[in-house]
Amino acid sequence: GVLPLCRQPPAWGRAAWQSPGPLQSPGLPLAPCRAFSNNKILVELDESSGVAMMKFKSPPVNSLSLDFLTEFCISLEKLENDRACRGVIITSNVPKIFSSGLDITEMCGKSTEHYAEFWRAVQEIWLRVYGSNMVTIAAVNGSSPAGGCLVALSCDYRIMVENPKFSIGLNEAQLGIVAPFWFKDTFVNVVGHRVAERSLQLGSLHSAAEAHKIGLVDELVPEEKLQERAVAVMAEWLALPDHARQLTKSMMRKAVLDRLVAHREEDIQNFISFISKESIQKSLRRYMEMLKKKK
Amino acid sequence: GVLPLCRQPPAWGRAAWQSPGPLQSPGLPLAPCRAFSNNKILVELDESSGVAMMKFKSPPVNSLSLDFLTEFCISLEKLENDRACRGVIITSNVPKIFSSGLDITEMCGKSTEHYAEFWRAVQEIWLRVYGSNMVTIAAVNGSSPAGGCLVALSCDYRIMVENPKFSIGLNEAQLGIVAPFWFKDTFVNVVGHRVAERSLQLGSLHSAAEAHKIGLVDELVPEEKLQERAVAVMAEWLALPDHARQLTKSMMRKAVLDRLVAHREEDIQNFISFISKESIQKSLRRYMEMLKKKK
Amino acid sequence: GVLPLCRQPPAWGRAAWQSPGPLQSPGLPLAPCRAFSNNKILVELDESSGVAMMKFKSPPVNSLSLDFLTEFCISLEKLENDRACRGVIITSNVPKIFSSGLDITEMCGKSTEHYAEFWRAVQEIWLRVYGSNMVTIAAVNGSSPAGGCLVALSCDYRIMVENPKFSIGLNEAQLGIVAPFWFKDTFVNVVGHRVAERSLQLGSLHSAAEAHKIGLVDELVPEEKLQERAVAVMAEWLALPDHARQLTKSMMRKAVLDRLVAHREEDIQNFISFISKESIQKSLRRYMEMLKKKK
Repeated sequence: GVLPLCRQPPAWGRAAWQSPGPLQSPGLPLAPCRAFSNNKILVELDESSGVAMMKFKSPPVNSLSLDFLTEFCISLEKLENDRACRGVIITSNVPKIFSSGLDITEMCGKSTEHYAEFWRAVQEIWLRVYGSNMVTIAAVNGSSPAGGCLVALSCDYRIMVENPKFSIGLNEAQLGIVAPFWFKDTFVNVVGHRVAERSLQLGSLHSAAEAHKIGLVDELVPEEKLQERAVAVMAEWLALPDHARQLTKSMMRKAVLDRLVAHREEDIQNFISFISKESIQKSLRRYMEMLKKKK
Repeated sequence: GVLPLCRQPPAWGRAAWQSPGPLQSPGLPLAPCRAFSNNKILVELDESSGVAMMKFKSPPVNSLSLDFLTEFCISLEKLENDRACRGVIITSNVPKIFSSGLDITEMCGKSTEHYAEFWRAVQEIWLRVYGSNMVTIAAVNGSSPAGGCLVALSCDYRIMVENPKFSIGLNEAQLGIVAPFWFKDTFVNVVGHRVAERSLQLGSLHSAAEAHKIGLVDELVPEEKLQERAVAVMAEWLALPDHARQLTKSMMRKAVLDRLVAHREEDIQNFISFISKESIQKSLRRYMEMLKKKK
Repeated sequence: GVLPLCRQPPAWGRAAWQSPGPLQSPGLPLAPCRAFSNNKILVELDESSGVAMMKFKSPPVNSLSLDFLTEFCISLEKLENDRACRGVIITSNVPKIFSSGLDITEMCGKSTEHYAEFWRAVQEIWLRVYGSNMVTIAAVNGSSPAGGCLVALSCDYRIMVENPKFSIGLNEAQLGIVAPFWFKDTFVNVVGHRVAERSLQLGSLHSAAEAHKIGLVDELVPEEKLQERAVAVMAEWLALPDHARQLTKSMMRKAVLDRLVAHREEDIQNFISFISKESIQKSLRRYMEMLKKKK
């Protein structure tokens, strides 16, 4: 259950001093590994460790289209409700890119209804990742601008490949648009007010080294060590009793989650009226044309 | 007077440009040093400097039992109301431990009334230390988990002995319990949101070096220099006019202090209902057995 | 238009992807540079870049008297309403001092009405600088205590000359007075809660190197490079589309700006009753005498 949305109680039944050893979920087959997949996301759950590996596989850039967000949401919900799963590592199956962020085509020349549906899906993903009861680790193996950065920021821990070509940041201002308040709140909770203020105003895309220096990511590793390191960090987090960790996480994040929950419809209306402005549409079209020329 | 509780006005009468020289409290004898002590805490007040040394002496681990908290509270109140006292250095008289935190035996198999009384005493200590009008310096000369860490966090300045065997942190999650919101607020005010979020979820006990790196303590010194350094830092803080420093401190801490004052009874009820859960009692009993085996 | 005060809409008319090239404001003469000046402040606007250089020239120490604040306010308003101006660099024309802060003579032995007028002017300057739609860069070429530090803190970016003799900080506590809550809020937004708490209580004046280390200033440069570097940083900030940057800035600062707007009259009354106390007047007189002796 996602903390702010679901009424179902957290996993109290689990032993407080649960060791990270094998979990035997009653009623579930004792397979060593279960996988499910849809068009854009691949998920493998290792039942012996309780850890799921979630891989974005939507080439060329794992952009967060409405379809992608819907599948992302379904995958998260499946894991959240699966008692065999205690943590998820989010990474990319596409070379050089973690996620390019919100799909701009969803924001250009569409109907008001479409904008509303799209924005609600963006909100939902954030609420589910930022409020997840599972341990969430972002294994950032490529560039991660805007909405891609938000996904990473919403996890409990961020490990990034130390490739100077990979960058990460909330660069919305570069596109002539403004990151919503809950992107900002999430960012401030990670890097503090001053770093967020400067980075958001400049729409900065930080190199991996810079991202580490400002605390946007927690550690850097060589690409070939990423998965191994993510699994090791996950084991450290899973060594803690679930319910204490979950309540602590909720205590830290509740104020920011509640703020969007309380203003969700208003935030959708703000998005629609902002994105519908002719000046913004023009900016986005110009940006898309620029991207096309780059290819 | 403790800022959020007492109605008595702060020490306005003192001269704004008061030098750190000898204070002559009218009506008080001009002894160079006065001491008082109870079973668990030793206090010596140097009237020439206005600085009290408060030493926890409740072996084996200075655990914060109801009796200890009561004596701690009385000692603080005495100093707070003594115009000859402007600052207090809190340290331990027990080797290798500053304070092991809340006494778990007070939370195991006791009555609802006992839990309420105990929790009110924990709240009271925090309100008095965090809201003290005196300059408060923690001279951390040993390990300081959970409630012991809270006492240090509530002071104005923290100096820790640079012994790699000494650790400090809010490790409640390791015990299957959750630090209350005001422990969290105090921690966030010292180390920032991100460091607090990670440290609290992992129930981290930080080595002295790590504690210094994340800002949990302000400086490290060799054990033999601790007292000398605490006295020197105290002199720097006492060089400021009391009333300006006190009002500034209140401005910085008021929001967080007020939050507990406003929700104090609710917080007691939450503690009682949490600690009374059979699963939590089981966790705590298991933890106490583990501690016994260690001996 | 200043964000919290004016009802006039921000500069939406400007193209989102506006290049930092020459701006042609219709109805304005195409002069390469326009200057205006009053008694205490010199302003030069380079129309080709859209950048104004504002120089404090009120010897001996650029103290923020009522007259100075009034001229500062008029100069800012002119620039804010000038579509040819997108950014302002604030610096000093007086050697060794950026600004010495609020003029103490305005706070000593004056009428209640005078205190109210003076304090309203201080508030106004902060609201206009902290909430400016322009990019604001402080080029700190001298010491900058108290109110001088506030002006720098209210800008988007701070560059300081790396002269060990120059210091900066909110040292009000040293004078026996207390920085108002909005000074504190601005400071916390820049350096975080813990650094602010300690620095404000000690009334610290930080050397340039220390100021850089704690994040009070963003970078240090040799004196001869200051202007060149300020212009280069300004160009980076102006590369962003104005409206996205302005909305982002407003999102980051709105809560703190709104807080003063909501409590403005109350804050004036607090100032008057505080500054009218005989003990405070005595402290300030003593401080002024100390300053006179120094000369």
